[in-house]
Amino acid sequence: MASEPLPIALDAMGGDHAPLEIVAGAVLAVRELGLPVVLVGQPRVLYEALSAHDATAEIPIVRAEEMLSMDEGALASLRRPRSSIAVACHLLRRGDAAAVVSAGSTAGVVATGKLRLRAQHGVLRPAIAVALPTLPHPTILVDAGANADVKPEMLVQFAHLGAAYVEASLDVKNPRVGLLTIGTEPEKGNKLAKRAHELLESSPGLDFAGNIEGHDLLTGKVDVIVTDGFTGNIALKTMEGSVRYAFGQLRETVAESRVAKFGGLLQRPRLRELYRRLDPEAHGGAVLLGLNGTVVIAHGSSRARGIASACELAARLATGKIVTKVGERVGTIPRSHRLW
Amino acid sequence: MASEPLPIALDAMGGDHAPLEIVAGAVLAVRELGLPVVLVGQPRVLYEALSAHDATAEIPIVRAEEMLSMDEGALASLRRPRSSIAVACHLLRRGDAAAVVSAGSTAGVVATGKLRLRAQHGVLRPAIAVALPTLPHPTILVDAGANADVKPEMLVQFAHLGAAYVEASLDVKNPRVGLLTIGTEPEKGNKLAKRAHELLESSPGLDFAGNIEGHDLLTGKVDVIVTDGFTGNIALKTMEGSVRYAFGQLRETVAESRVAKFGGLLQRPRLRELYRRLDPEAHGGAVLLGLNGTVVIAHGSSRARGIASACELAARLATGKIVTKVGERVGTIPRSHRLW
Repeated sequence: MASEPLPIALDAMGGDHAPLEIVAGAVLAVRELGLPVVLVGQPRVLYEALSAHDATAEIPIVRAEEMLSMDEGALASLRRPRSSIAVACHLLRRGDAAAVVSAGSTAGVVATGKLRLRAQHGVLRPAIAVALPTLPHPTILVDAGANADVKPEMLVQFAHLGAAYVEASLDVKNPRVGLLTIGTEPEKGNKLAKRAHELLESSPGLDFAGNIEGHDLLTGKVDVIVTDGFTGNIALKTMEGSVRYAFGQLRETVAESRVAKFGGLLQRPRLRELYRRLDPEAHGGAVLLGLNGTVVIAHGSSRARGIASACELAARLATGKIVTKVGERVGTIPRSHRLW
Repeated sequence: MASEPLPIALDAMGGDHAPLEIVAGAVLAVRELGLPVVLVGQPRVLYEALSAHDATAEIPIVRAEEMLSMDEGALASLRRPRSSIAVACHLLRRGDAAAVVSAGSTAGVVATGKLRLRAQHGVLRPAIAVALPTLPHPTILVDAGANADVKPEMLVQFAHLGAAYVEASLDVKNPRVGLLTIGTEPEKGNKLAKRAHELLESSPGLDFAGNIEGHDLLTGKVDVIVTDGFTGNIALKTMEGSVRYAFGQLRETVAESRVAKFGGLLQRPRLRELYRRLDPEAHGGAVLLGLNGTVVIAHGSSRARGIASACELAARLATGKIVTKVGERVGTIPRSHRLW
């Protein structure tokens, strides 16, 4: 008897549009992508929402009466051990789910994930990885915000976390790793980046391509971009804001000058596709790497399509054995590159 | 007898397109903007270039046989006391120029400026200010790359440097200052940002508007954005790269889908204006603040128009008494917010 694949545990109560859009996303994931999903949250509300899709028989519900609100952070996750995200993590930990997906507040999901799943053996600090919309395949940015203050040795670990992500989900061998700093020469950067450059350069098992700068974020020059969570978060949000601004200004300018019905122009399939690719709210989401289990953090404003993408990413990472790959990689880090 | 206004000392040998485009820029500045300019560099070459514009009588040349190449940094500025940028700084220092403009390598200009002009009394670290293309007026980002490792007290100074820039050049009273970090709550950020938040909040003479995030860079939410030079440089380059990428992808997508002659569309005046406003190579340039004199660093790839804009910015800052305003502002910083 072939065993059923494990389901994605989907936090139905996290996100700006929870629970209705989360439930709709679960229905999409099950019906269009063929992924098994369990919804975690308040049974009455979820049953009603599933009924509207005629999906009560397809998607099981796991009870969690409490939840973290979008403006709650790390402390709330300690106070509410039975929140929907905590219960989702619990399912993963006891082997009843393949991965967790939540569109809840990043701080809350990170804190709960770390508390309930714990860091993998050998991982100093779990980190957030985000896929930047480069072609032909995404570039993985690590850390996008989990660790504001880090040591150089942690950046070596982030490089391995990102490389494992690439190997598990993108079918790229020996991912090239770049260090985000302020000049291409090895000695350019702050103290952290300079020391990290030395460590990365002498790290076995890493294809280190050297320093990259802010304007390389979207050029696809490397497969993995390593940085601390402070810089990474600012770079990511700057990129998102700048792309949004450029499109917005363009649309406004065309509207004002009555050059063309640019609104109409943007409806064309290829332009819509471009716009969606560059829209941060449309992709799968951030991944919390380095835990004993895969946790995908969907954008807080995700609607059904974004939730389904996040489930797909979570399933792909779980199938690609991301946790095993991370474990193998951090196991190869030599003593000289560790903090202990 | 009314005294002549002092000229801008223009480093004619710095920049990817030096000296021809620099000379052409000087001619534009003199003829179109009515700004007095002196060219600093190799007399024979410059005389010939000026002759092509029939401008030898309008623009004086100051001799400097040596120069810093674009890939030379801080050390070269020590080795070449008679480089064109060093001589330009010398003119400013002895009162024969109102300001210095150079399109040379940022590292070389910063090092030479600091060495020849020295930091103003009370300024801990000169910093680079860049005008971001927000509307209705630019937002000033400080530090955009001069200081990779800083102390929180320096960020308070950067706030005053940026505020003085706004007051001297933009006619905005009581500029609003934002701290670039990774969340709007005061406790969000790395150790540097958290301590800087406390200091900025308790700084007299600053209109501190709190934390801002990466996606606020182009929203015009504040007049001055304060950050360390590492983060600021990455944010700036990420913004430039993202805007360029968005426009590039858009153009490619439209070309491929044959929706419209988008190339033609971009020729329309308003779109061209937008593109130019968002193009980093088109604006005036970065300003090195906190020295005994105004130094504008034009983009290395500047052509004549960019050089003329840089001269205009330099003249506006000098007329606005930026050095005096910086001195007054840093003089008001209380002892508790200083490093000594």
